[in-house]
This record gives sequence, C-alpha cells and structure tokens, in this order.
Amino acid sequence: MSLNGTNEKEEPRYIKLNAKDNVVITVNFGGLKEGTEFSCGLKLTEYVPQGHKVALKDLVQGEAIVRYGEVIGYALQPIKRGSWVKESLIDMPAPPELDLLPIANNVPEPLPLLEGYTFEGYRNADGSVGIKNILGITTSVQCVAGVLSYAVKRIKEEILPKYPNVHDVVALEHNYGCGVAINAPEAIVPIRTIQNIALHPNFGGEVMVVGLGCEKLRPETLVPDGEEEPIISLQDQQGFTNMVHTILEMAEGRLRRLNERKRVTCPASDLVIGLQCGGSDAFSGVTANPAVGYAADLLVRAGATVMFSEVTEVRDAVHLLTPRAVNEEVGRKLIHEMKWYDEYLQRGQSDRSANTSPGNKKGGLSNIVEKSLGSVAKSGSSAIIDVLAPGERATKKGLIFAATPAGDFVCGTLQLASGMHMQVFTTGRGTPYGLAMAPVIKVSTRNALTEQWHDLIDVNAGRIATGEATIEEVGWEIFHYILDVASGRKQTWTDHWGLHNSLCLFNPAPVT
Amino acid sequence: MSLNGTNEKEEPRYIKLNAKDNVVITVNFGGLKEGTEFSCGLKLTEYVPQGHKVALKDLVQGEAIVRYGEVIGYALQPIKRGSWVKESLIDMPAPPELDLLPIANNVPEPLPLLEGYTFEGYRNADGSVGIKNILGITTSVQCVAGVLSYAVKRIKEEILPKYPNVHDVVALEHNYGCGVAINAPEAIVPIRTIQNIALHPNFGGEVMVVGLGCEKLRPETLVPDGEEEPIISLQDQQGFTNMVHTILEMAEGRLRRLNERKRVTCPASDLVIGLQCGGSDAFSGVTANPAVGYAADLLVRAGATVMFSEVTEVRDAVHLLTPRAVNEEVGRKLIHEMKWYDEYLQRGQSDRSANTSPGNKKGGLSNIVEKSLGSVAKSGSSAIIDVLAPGERATKKGLIFAATPAGDFVCGTLQLASGMHMQVFTTGRGTPYGLAMAPVIKVSTRNALTEQWHDLIDVNAGRIATGEATIEEVGWEIFHYILDVASGRKQTWTDHWGLHNSLCLFNPAPVT
Ligand SMILES: [Ca+2]
Ligand SMILES: [Ca+2]
Ligand SMILES: [Ca+2]
Ligand SMILES: [Ca+2]
Ligand SMILES: [Ca+2]
Repeated sequence: MSLNGTNEKEEPRYIKLNAKDNVVITVNFGGLKEGTEFSCGLKLTEYVPQGHKVALKDLVQGEAIVRYGEVIGYALQPIKRGSWVKESLIDMPAPPELDLLPIANNVPEPLPLLEGYTFEGYRNADGSVGIKNILGITTSVQCVAGVLSYAVKRIKEEILPKYPNVHDVVALEHNYGCGVAINAPEAIVPIRTIQNIALHPNFGGEVMVVGLGCEKLRPETLVPDGEEEPIISLQDQQGFTNMVHTILEMAEGRLRRLNERKRVTCPASDLVIGLQCGGSDAFSGVTANPAVGYAADLLVRAGATVMFSEVTEVRDAVHLLTPRAVNEEVGRKLIHEMKWYDEYLQRGQSDRSANTSPGNKKGGLSNIVEKSLGSVAKSGSSAIIDVLAPGERATKKGLIFAATPAGDFVCGTLQLASGMHMQVFTTGRGTPYGLAMAPVIKVSTRNALTEQWHDLIDVNAGRIATGEATIEEVGWEIFHYILDVASGRKQTWTDHWGLHNSLCLFNPAPVT
Repeated sequence: MSLNGTNEKEEPRYIKLNAKDNVVITVNFGGLKEGTEFSCGLKLTEYVPQGHKVALKDLVQGEAIVRYGEVIGYALQPIKRGSWVKESLIDMPAPPELDLLPIANNVPEPLPLLEGYTFEGYRNADGSVGIKNILGITTSVQCVAGVLSYAVKRIKEEILPKYPNVHDVVALEHNYGCGVAINAPEAIVPIRTIQNIALHPNFGGEVMVVGLGCEKLRPETLVPDGEEEPIISLQDQQGFTNMVHTILEMAEGRLRRLNERKRVTCPASDLVIGLQCGGSDAFSGVTANPAVGYAADLLVRAGATVMFSEVTEVRDAVHLLTPRAVNEEVGRKLIHEMKWYDEYLQRGQSDRSANTSPGNKKGGLSNIVEKSLGSVAKSGSSAIIDVLAPGERATKKGLIFAATPAGDFVCGTLQLASGMHMQVFTTGRGTPYGLAMAPVIKVSTRNALTEQWHDLIDVNAGRIATGEATIEEVGWEIFHYILDVASGRKQTWTDHWGLHNSLCLFNPAPVT
C-alpha cells in the first residue's frame, strides 16, 4: 500500500450513512482520481481526497446538503453529481433555536441489563473505586510549581521505589490560585475543578496540598472532608531545602498508607468513563464514534457512568439530544449549558464555528454542523440522565452530558474533576495526548492512522470503513479493553511511554 | 531574634514616606504591642502587626487617609491617633478618571548618562544579545507536550552533555494552539506572545518548532524570518519512536551550532530588563520597589531597556505616570491599555480591586490603591518613552510600560515575549517563582524574609527599613548584580536550584 498516492488496486468505495443523504464520503486512502467509477455507477468529475464528500445527485443553488439524515448546509452554487462537495461550496445553517427544542419527547427505553462484568479496582473508604494507585499532590497556586517539580523528582527517585504497590506520584500543577478575579461569578468553574480533582478516586483519599501562603485560593478548601491537615505552606518553611524536606516527609507517610491498597473485584457499574474526540475527520462519525457509542451503551447496560462532553460539538446536534433527556429538568439543564456557552463565545466576539480546525477540514469535515453530527454518535442510544456544569462531580449512573469546551486538555481536565477513571478518545488526524491521572484509550478512525501510529493507537475502528469489522464488534472490543485497563491487565500506549499532558483549567473569568 | 513574637529589645520604629501622610507603617518584626511608645511620643492604642498602618492623628469619619502623599481611602468611622488603620476602616476611593488625566505635562529631564558599564553576552546575527545559550523548542499546540517532554529528557541526558557551551534545552509548552477561538479579535495576544517568545535572544535564532499537524495555530507562523524550515509535524511521523528520533536529530544539529557561541563584551545598553513584584506587603513600596526604581534609573542612564508592567497595579497610580509620558502619543497608549483592562475586567463582572490577595492584606496593604502607589515606585523617575500592548516586542531603549496582568507567571511570560533578558522581582511575602528562559532576581522587602528564605532571596532590600542601607546603595547592588548574572559570573537562587515555572499565556479570547 502506498502511503501518499491513491491505491490503484483497491476497489473505490464510499460510505452513505442515511437513506436521506445526498452526499457520501470516499473511503480509499489517498483519495480517488477524476473519472473513478463506483460499482453503483457514480463517477467522479474530479479528484476527491479521502473522507471528503461527493454529490450523489445534481444539487441546485440553495439546495440542502444532507448527511447523517440531517442538513449540514446549503449549496452556494449548483453542484454536479460526482463532484467534490468542498467547504467553499457550503453555506452553514443556523444552529438549532434553543427556545424551540423538543424536550424528553423521545426518551429511549432502558437498555437490557448487562450483568456479570467486573474489573479489579482499589475500593476506597468512601465507597468509590480507583483504577490506579497514585499519590496526588495538589497545589493552591502556580507559584509553588517549581519547588514541587523538584520535590516530586526526588520522591520518584528516592522514595517511591520503596512502595512498589504505588504506581506514580502526580503533581497537580495549574495556572490558577492567584492573579485571578477569584470573586468573579465564573471563578466557580476553575475553583470547583481543582477541588473536585483532589477528590479523584485514584488518589485513595490521601491527596496532599502544597500552597504558598499568600494566594487567593485557600489551600484548606482543597482538603477532602474529614482529612487530617495535609497542607504544606511554603511561606512557613525555613528556605528551599527545608521546603523540599517537608514535602518528602509528608509524601512518605502517605506512600506508606497507599502501599497497603489492594485490588479487589468490583462490578463494572463502579466505573466512570469519559468520552472525547480530537483531531476529528470525516470518518470519526462513521467508524470510531459509533463504535464508542456502542461501547457507551454496553457500559450503561452494565450500570456504569458514561460522560460525553464538548459543548461546541454538541450545539449543532442538540435537537437530536434534548428529546433523549430523561425528563424536562435534564433537558432544561442541557439547554442552559448551550446558552451559557453561546453567550460566553459571543462576549469574545466569536461563535461555535470557531471550533473546527484546519485538520478537521483537511480530513473532510466542512463545518461544525457536520462535525457535531459525527461527534454525538459517541453518546450511543440511551437516555441522558443528567447534565453537569463544567467541573461538577458525577453522582449518577447512566449517560451524562458533562458540559466542557472541546479542547482536548480542557475537556480531559474537567472530566477528571467529574470523577472520570479513564477516557476513550477517538481521533482521525492523530494526537499523542495523555493524562497522568487516568488512562486515555486512543481509538483510530482510519486504518492508515493505525498503521502509521502503530505505537500510539490502542484500538483500530478503521476496520469498520473497510468492512473488516462491524460497529458492534469494535464496540465490544472497546468495552473489554476498558475492563482490562481498569484492572491493570493492559496498559494504554500513552501510559506505556509516559506521555502525560498538563492539566488545563477552564477559567471563563478574568485574570488580574 | 524570635521568629513569631515581638522583639522586646528592639526600639519601636515606623516609616513615614511623605510629609503629607497621616498614617505610618510599623517596622518591627512581629508587630508592636498596645502601649508601645515611639520616640516622637506617638503611643499605640492597640497591637499593630508589622507593616500595618498607624494613625498619626485623630481622623474624623470621611477624612482622607494619606500615604505616599496620596489618598489611599477615606475613614469609614472616627479613627483615634495611635490606633491600627485596618482594611475594614477604609473606604476605597474611585480610580483616577481616565479621560481627565494630564499627559506629558511633567516629562522628566533625561538623566545623566552612565558610561562604561558592560556585560559578557552572546551577540546574535540580528544584533540582539543573549545572556544565556539555550536551545529553545517551541510548540504550536499543547497536544505535543507529552512527546516533547519525553524527547527533551533524552536530549538532556544523551546529547546536551556533548555540547558544554549550551546551558539548557527549554521546551516552550503552553495551553494554546487549538480548541481556541483563533479568529476572535483578542486572539492576537496569545498568538503574538508565542511568536515573539520564539525570537528570544537567548535562543540565538536556532529555535525549532514541534507541531501536531491539524492545529489552528500554524507552526510556520512561529519560525523566525529567514530560517531554514525547523518544523517537525508529529502527524507526519511514523509513530512515537520515530517522532522522538526526528526531534533528537534536529536538536543535535542545532546544539552543534549553538555550542559555537562565545561570550563577548557588550555595553549595558544591550540589556532588556523586566521589573515585577509578587507577594507584596507594605514594605514593598518602601524598600524593595524604590531600590529597584533606583536600579531602573541606573539602567536607563546606561542606555538599557527597562520594562515595568502589571496593569491592575498601575491603574490607581496612573495619574502619577501619564505626566511622565514622553509625549502625547505615549500617554494615550498608556491610557488605552488601562481602558482596555477596565473593560476586560468588567466583561467578567470584576474590577481592579480583584487584584489584592489575602497575603497582601496580611502584609499590611489594605487595598489596590495603596498597593499601586508602592508598585509604581519600581519605575524609578525617568520619562516613559513607550507603551507595549501585551506580548509586543520592545524596540526602544529607556523606560517602557509593557501592559500585562499582574499575575506573576502571566507577567513573566509576556515580558519574555517583549524580549526580557532578566526579571527583577520584589517580594514581601515570598515566592519561589523562576523562569527557565531568563534569570529571576529575587529582592526581599524585609530582613525577616531574607533570613527565613536564606537560599532563595538574592538581594535583601529589608536593610533599607532598618537603616542598614540606603535606597541608593541597594539600587547600585541590584545594578551590579544584573551585570554579573547577565555575564554568567553569578547565578540566581532559582537557577541554582532549577526552579522554573511553566509559561502561562494571557488569552483574553474564548476557548472552544
Ligand atoms: Ca472533539
Ligand atoms: Ca476534543
Ligand atoms: Ca505585583
Ligand atoms: Ca506580579
Ligand atoms: Ca530563573
């Protein structure tokens, strides 16, 4: 197989998703040449790159362009059957009117229970379950980050090896804590994010806090309830050497206790799984996202908590989601989060169209409407039982919309605050993103990416496009892989290499 | 000397700054007890902590409270002579009206030239001078940060030791690049910050760029003009192992060239020095900031560029600055930056009073007006010859106001973008903050902090309060220390320990 040219030997293939669609997307790696004829008789009038759209019929100017059975835009000029339907030919439709949405009018029936699936986790005193055994060291302000990095390096080299049951020491550095408008109404978002991350079940209730002393975010607000005082304030220490000594000493006490944790068999219903996509292409909505959606349904059937997110990628498909809200209240919460984000973007003189990246467009996603229709496929088919504002903790089992920006690290950080054990991340263009606190499972939308990034992609959903596997098969594969990773039996590639991106807080309030 | 109690043996002392002042601040460590009598006859009616204000006379309700010869607020109730003038007794005045400010009406005469001062720096092809020899690796998006960290660790371990004239390899990680509203009007701020940081003179024009491939911020916009293509796009690589190999290979070529750089004697006028304060207390405006202001004047006299910043700490003292603007245009630019920030804070339902931290208040700074009057002392006494919007590059010699938020890392990052070689940082409460790209000189406002943080404070300005040194003496000490650090003859404590905080971009635009 050639990596850059069209594969001359392969049958030309396209994917049509819905009977109503008047465009299809090309499957073949490298794209398809002018004159290519499909088995149905459709003939390309020009070269079409892989994953890009082809008109199934002549479209007149102003005619609706339909994919996923939904209008993704209107033809800006006449478009001939067999020609490339590129971004420049499409007029983007207005987003769904939030005040006119049907709510809870098509609530899916509960899916059949799936019993007997378990994983090996660390049961905590508060009933939650961790899937890793990590010493978490959180911070109340970025000022301390240099000292903490120095101390963590020494803890890892000198102390951690004595406690083999502990996987890692993770410093929770962030840009918040001082130099911020901490009383602005929206400061609640970064504050609760930091607070809830400290409660993460992987830390086993043994999180410690390193603060400076004069910061606005008070360290004592980051301590889990009922904890003995696990706070080190650097301004109370006699210089740098003493700071490091104090941190190492407290860390050792906690490592000793964490080292006693043992894995026990837990029902799959104890899991909290986050879903995300990044570096999406036109295959995202055809292969990886539907497979993840199938896995999401399996998790919901097994009683687990599943969160999908990314407001700007849900906004244009929200009319497909509000009918699935389990009740009026949940539907209203979903609409509220969309409105809040509309206003947030408007304040910055932007709108939801700012979401799509050059990579998305190169990958065949013409606009945010098309991207959104593919993105929401991750949510599967169950009822939406709750909606979380950014950084809130998940408290219910079932499918939840956790409102977050779509940026990968921001979404990842907020899902961690919501209690996520693991993220399932679909990608078409490819991203090596990882998190220190929780495994990130990379699901590729295309065979070519899986081959190219052979040591970074965990699950290949590209086989769905080529007919080598069904959505259901890849869905089950993801489900089993989640249980294996949660049990420590398998390791994601990013954990294998130790590729861990920093936390990235969402702060819609001003800095000072 | 006891660390927590009042030192009984020391004479009680206070500092009065201006003949018009009707409050003074206490000097003694641990504060002063009720009944303490000063040599002038003033007697304390209650305990007053160190650095806090005492009324010199009976104040009636509504009377102006004067410090630095300026009104810092109005008495909310009658205040007796000798009593503690705490925050709760002070009504904060309105900020200076921006449309009514006098501009360039009191431009200081040029200070006498200071000739013959030099340092040993690295002269670059473009005429700029570096004070460190660093391989800079910048990024177009946070997605690549995990891979880059892994690669940089290997470069430092395996390759850097072969090139002993190179000090460090610095990965310029940040949260920008994708998942952001890149076409929002204010996106220009983070974008030019990243672009200008890549041009930093310490990198010797050899910066390389690691990008992903699908991000919104295009890697090619980060390449210095006229450079051969120094971009590695991870999506073009055959997996992780290959990514790391490619980065190591490009890094080695650049390290080889950087290793040829030699220090040469350069005039002090080649220096670009940033000024900042953080963790301020009531002594900041009495000891460290005036000493830094004196050093700023020396630098200006020697022909160097000196930047002061922190909009929210200048806002309430701006009426003291606009008269010093060298001309109408510079004065208008200063006012424009103040207005922009007022509106930015207002959009987030906040205002400049959000600046002060609990540590400031504990240290005796009742409000932002008092803090600002002390903060601007850093600017010395020369004319303000230019104003930069956040992240713009300094192009002139003399005293410049570089508009930035006051948060330490945000200000540090923006001053780096403006071309700062070194930052002089005054602190009263203490912060261990450092930057990998440029030394940060810590100037303590108090003897007690200098003793306590003996291995973090570089210069002790606390001696000014106790009469052990004059403002001029400490100013000269800072000036000479700058030349020593720039020449590599001395090392700051944060560089000694390797305490380096992450870059922290200022992004006033929305994320998506
Ligand atoms: Ca996405
Ligand atoms: Ca995403
Ligand atoms: Ca300051
Ligand atoms: Ca500051
Ligand atoms: Ca430094």
